Amino acid sequence: MSDKISAPLPLRSVRVSDPFWSREMDLIRTAVIPYQWDALNDRIPGAAPSWWAHNMRAAARAIAAKKVGGGYAPVQQNCGFVVSPEEGKPPMEDGFYGFVFQDSDGYKWLEAVAYQLTVKPDAALQKQAQEAVDLIRAAQEEDGYLNTYYSLTGRENAFTNLKDHHELYCFGHLTEAAVAWKQATGKDDLLDVARRFGRCIAEKFGPGKERGCPGHEIAEMALYRLYEETGEAEWKDLAQRFLDVRGTEPSTFALEENRRLKKEGKKELPVTAERYRYYQAHKPVREMDEAVGHAVRQMYLASGMADEARLTGDEAMLKACERLWRSTVNEKMYVTGGVGGTHVGEAFSRPFDLPSDTAYSETCAAIGLAFFARRMLQLTPKAEYADVMERALYNTVLAGMALDGKSFFYVNPLEVDPAACETDERLSHVKPVRQKWFGCACCPPNIARIVSSLGQYIATQTEDALYIHLYIGSEIKATLNGQEITLRLDADLTNTGHVEISVLSGEAEGTVALRLPGWAQNGSAEAKQNSRLQNGYFHFTGVWRAGDTITADFPMTVQAIAASPLVRETSGQVCYTRGPWVYCAEEEDNGKCLHLLRACPERTAEVQCSEKEIDGLTVPALTVPGKRVTMPENVPLYAPWSKPQTTETKITLIPYFAWNNRGKGEMRVWLQSE
Amino acid sequence: MSDKISAPLPLRSVRVSDPFWSREMDLIRTAVIPYQWDALNDRIPGAAPSWWAHNMRAAARAIAAKKVGGGYAPVQQNCGFVVSPEEGKPPMEDGFYGFVFQDSDGYKWLEAVAYQLTVKPDAALQKQAQEAVDLIRAAQEEDGYLNTYYSLTGRENAFTNLKDHHELYCFGHLTEAAVAWKQATGKDDLLDVARRFGRCIAEKFGPGKERGCPGHEIAEMALYRLYEETGEAEWKDLAQRFLDVRGTEPSTFALEENRRLKKEGKKELPVTAERYRYYQAHKPVREMDEAVGHAVRQMYLASGMADEARLTGDEAMLKACERLWRSTVNEKMYVTGGVGGTHVGEAFSRPFDLPSDTAYSETCAAIGLAFFARRMLQLTPKAEYADVMERALYNTVLAGMALDGKSFFYVNPLEVDPAACETDERLSHVKPVRQKWFGCACCPPNIARIVSSLGQYIATQTEDALYIHLYIGSEIKATLNGQEITLRLDADLTNTGHVEISVLSGEAEGTVALRLPGWAQNGSAEAKQNSRLQNGYFHFTGVWRAGDTITADFPMTVQAIAASPLVRETSGQVCYTRGPWVYCAEEEDNGKCLHLLRACPERTAEVQCSEKEIDGLTVPALTVPGKRVTMPENVPLYAPWSKPQTTETKITLIPYFAWNNRGKGEMRVWLQSE
Repeated sequence: MSDKISAPLPLRSVRVSDPFWSREMDLIRTAVIPYQWDALNDRIPGAAPSWWAHNMRAAARAIAAKKVGGGYAPVQQNCGFVVSPEEGKPPMEDGFYGFVFQDSDGYKWLEAVAYQLTVKPDAALQKQAQEAVDLIRAAQEEDGYLNTYYSLTGRENAFTNLKDHHELYCFGHLTEAAVAWKQATGKDDLLDVARRFGRCIAEKFGPGKERGCPGHEIAEMALYRLYEETGEAEWKDLAQRFLDVRGTEPSTFALEENRRLKKEGKKELPVTAERYRYYQAHKPVREMDEAVGHAVRQMYLASGMADEARLTGDEAMLKACERLWRSTVNEKMYVTGGVGGTHVGEAFSRPFDLPSDTAYSETCAAIGLAFFARRMLQLTPKAEYADVMERALYNTVLAGMALDGKSFFYVNPLEVDPAACETDERLSHVKPVRQKWFGCACCPPNIARIVSSLGQYIATQTEDALYIHLYIGSEIKATLNGQEITLRLDADLTNTGHVEISVLSGEAEGTVALRLPGWAQNGSAEAKQNSRLQNGYFHFTGVWRAGDTITADFPMTVQAIAASPLVRETSGQVCYTRGPWVYCAEEEDNGKCLHLLRACPERTAEVQCSEKEIDGLTVPALTVPGKRVTMPENVPLYAPWSKPQTTETKITLIPYFAWNNRGKGEMRVWLQSE
Repeated sequence: MSDKISAPLPLRSVRVSDPFWSREMDLIRTAVIPYQWDALNDRIPGAAPSWWAHNMRAAARAIAAKKVGGGYAPVQQNCGFVVSPEEGKPPMEDGFYGFVFQDSDGYKWLEAVAYQLTVKPDAALQKQAQEAVDLIRAAQEEDGYLNTYYSLTGRENAFTNLKDHHELYCFGHLTEAAVAWKQATGKDDLLDVARRFGRCIAEKFGPGKERGCPGHEIAEMALYRLYEETGEAEWKDLAQRFLDVRGTEPSTFALEENRRLKKEGKKELPVTAERYRYYQAHKPVREMDEAVGHAVRQMYLASGMADEARLTGDEAMLKACERLWRSTVNEKMYVTGGVGGTHVGEAFSRPFDLPSDTAYSETCAAIGLAFFARRMLQLTPKAEYADVMERALYNTVLAGMALDGKSFFYVNPLEVDPAACETDERLSHVKPVRQKWFGCACCPPNIARIVSSLGQYIATQTEDALYIHLYIGSEIKATLNGQEITLRLDADLTNTGHVEISVLSGEAEGTVALRLPGWAQNGSAEAKQNSRLQNGYFHFTGVWRAGDTITADFPMTVQAIAASPLVRETSGQVCYTRGPWVYCAEEEDNGKCLHLLRACPERTAEVQCSEKEIDGLTVPALTVPGKRVTMPENVPLYAPWSKPQTTETKITLIPYFAWNNRGKGEMRVWLQSE
């Protein structure tokens, strides 16, 4: 694999100019980031408090006063609990509040800010971010430990519940932010915080020390990133250690639990690993072959595993990554690029169980899938990986945020009837409208950080080749065989599918490779060089000089899509896609009872593309031929079957990402076919 | 309504001779009743203990020793808890174990035994039952109070939690058993126990006393039955009181809760009724218009309401019953006669929400629907009521029990994939095979009591008319205008649909009315008298003498049935019925992946009736034309739609009641139509 390994370009080398995506990135900068800063500081009326800044300040005060660990909050055994102020009383100055993993909210915000600053300097924003960095620095204990929950409630309990208490998860997000901050500003301050906490962790769980691994993964990929940034081998070693310990027996999670049970005089558990599927700690990572458990964690773990395979050439790890990839995308992924078929454990369900209405499909899990896909692409540039990355980004990730950037979905169903999910406890996880902020606010800042770092998903490069994965208009500074060139990528994926790449400056010899999207198998690309199609990429090799161009056309054909017959839930149903966009029908355009619509996928000639303005944004819409089952008057609950009476209708479809921006109503991605 | 009110015939006046149903009744006598007696006495290895006899004996001992109420078990605030012996220790002799409503298990068993004894005397069985009666008598306290939970754990807490603690529910079942026992044996012993407990309750909650009503209904219909048996008005008054208090404000359930909260120094609740939909205590009964909450409770309440309407001529109550009926059967009933669309609260879901795979459809709720239907029939002899009663009895009620009488379903789904319900927590209530016994064993003895009293569902009579509702072979002794006649009813509802009624002896003048089943609208009936079709009954009026006959033919046409388009879950699907039987496809006959079958309901000429032997029973089976979607090799998860490839197949269907008697496998009632 080694000769194909590619790396994303430095974020500052990719300047996004695409009208659609620039708007999204601007939205993050102008609406989401300021809003989230207010949220982190509990300044949003009516929203669940974050407690992030409160907890940081309280920890900093306790540390300064050398009075760490008031110890008044009980050490809970799962991560689902929230500490709130006593009813009717103000929060205690030295109290910890919110979820145990609350520290991570601020780290994710900071990471997104760093990306934004990289792309577009902004002194005021940087000042605000510096405030956050300084707050974090002050909340770090002398030995490098950094976790406000334990600093405030009892440091003696630190590292006793890696399974559920998210210390290593918070460390992972801190590290991601620290590297991004360093790359944005050149400043080491946050990087040093991460390093000091990292050494504190390595002291306890590093190679040769106590066995332990994160209950919620992310530290693995963050550590590989820290290693890549600093070149310090200790971070690779710690990441490897976490991967190696995971899923082996005696299970470290069971041992932790047993220490607690023993203290309480209770019966200890067997130390086998199989109980820990939810945490992907049920078997050694190199033996994994099915995406299981909490979907976000599974995607983050797979991303870390792919980093390990890439950075160490670990073949067994590569094979495991490929098996997890196939399990995810061939058996467990929604057509929208969402993953997680069940709300029970926010988890992957069994293969081909992809219910539309009870879907979990957490925004963060689709983001995790994009992380994983980018890393698989780095390992091997196959169009398949980029297809999935694009599917997740253009559909579920974007759907997670309202078009005005002010409200968010955590769960992304493919079918919604507001009357059902507002009254039915079985659907209590499905919200019919986006929410302003969540107590567990993982998704909004996660959208902010992936959209802000979009440049790292557009292209990757090897020594002698530049791979263009996503057709997002941008100016790209690449290096081929040591020589720098600047290219301009223009692409229209809302209408024509036309792509133009032109060399703006520089001269270099090497390959520029363009992905042939899975949705445009009859697409073509031309340049003065001959092209060679391999692994779904047109490879153009030669000398590139200012003025050289590649033009490509990827027909934006409307496609009716069917799921495998093994997917029981969508049997006999069809959905529509065009280019990277998955479409859906909304009540606003098609009336109530969307289940009575019947699509007619054979009548391709009648499909029409159009445009629709939704909350100020013009989106590509579709009109497809269909029928509507008519309701005779006084129809009994059960009656002898007769061919359903239908009336001809035109079904209006809009891109999935834009749904629920015109008030509450029914929505369906999959339509019954005639 | 008064001139049409009919009553079931005394059970001993209807001798069931039908081959199909006699087998079911014999099964109850020979397999179910002895098995349940062992269960009540905790003598079934591997089954959850019932603790019934243990609790009765313990209470009796405590009462004899005048040491009622050890008070060691905490008073729990909901009915879902089970008290079990401490791990590793034997049960305490004076301990209460099991669910708080455990007393009712024995009462239900006793009621079933009484029906069996009525139909067929059996000295040994009667002796066993007498043992149970004596045990119950000994467990009654001096003031008439009878509830082993409170007698053993603290009598001072009696009647403090009517909402969840089932004292009045147990009283209801006791009373049902007592009347049945009196009718079977002529003995007053158990009836006196019920009366004494009834007076103890009336003393507390009767007219003019404290307001209160049962959290789980049944006392209402039991009290009306006691009133009908004894003629004592006090029972009617107490039933009425319960109905009148229910759903009025201040809510008695809230007041109860507030007394507990106050004791604990907690904030009290508003005393509005609306929170108590689960208990059908959200509004006054005469204002009810939708079947809501726990489905069994709703059906039992509606049955009591119908009794009230019948016995008092309460027009507002009759209208409420009719509204609840329409809500149930027009919007919330499965095609199998099951009710309860959601496991959350074992409850009615919203109108037209009738999912096949996550269905609750509790066996007891279908039994409750039959109770309600019989009472609506008594109020007005409309074929619609009998159609529903038949649908529930022939399908869901029977499906609740294995063909060998040895295992039972609590939940009756219309679609099962064992691989799904064994691994998916969202389906944890759905068992892929019947269970031997349940800790909460409400369903098995409920099946026993309704099947054993089947004679009371076959026919009802007014002063001058005999209504035949169900075509179940039997010998019926009826009274028309004071003159007794004996009729023989022969019916073949497994094959020909031919019915013959012949007068065996006696002479009487009046009407014999035969139901025209909803499934045989082109059926006919003939006798020497002219017939008049009214409300779905052929009325033959005249003088009846030995040798007179009525012959009827109700074509057993196979019907493809569609649900209302408003039922989202079965949109585009079809199921098959023949006569009273609803059919289903099983994996055993049709292979795996039943969702890939496509029924072709238009090809009626190809439907074939046949027979199938299942666990020794010959059942009417069907073969219907269909297709099976074929799976191309290496089919991707998502691919451009093309007309599904299918192969022609014959789909074998068996009656729903007989499913899951050939091992574990997939099952579907609703098939996708082509």
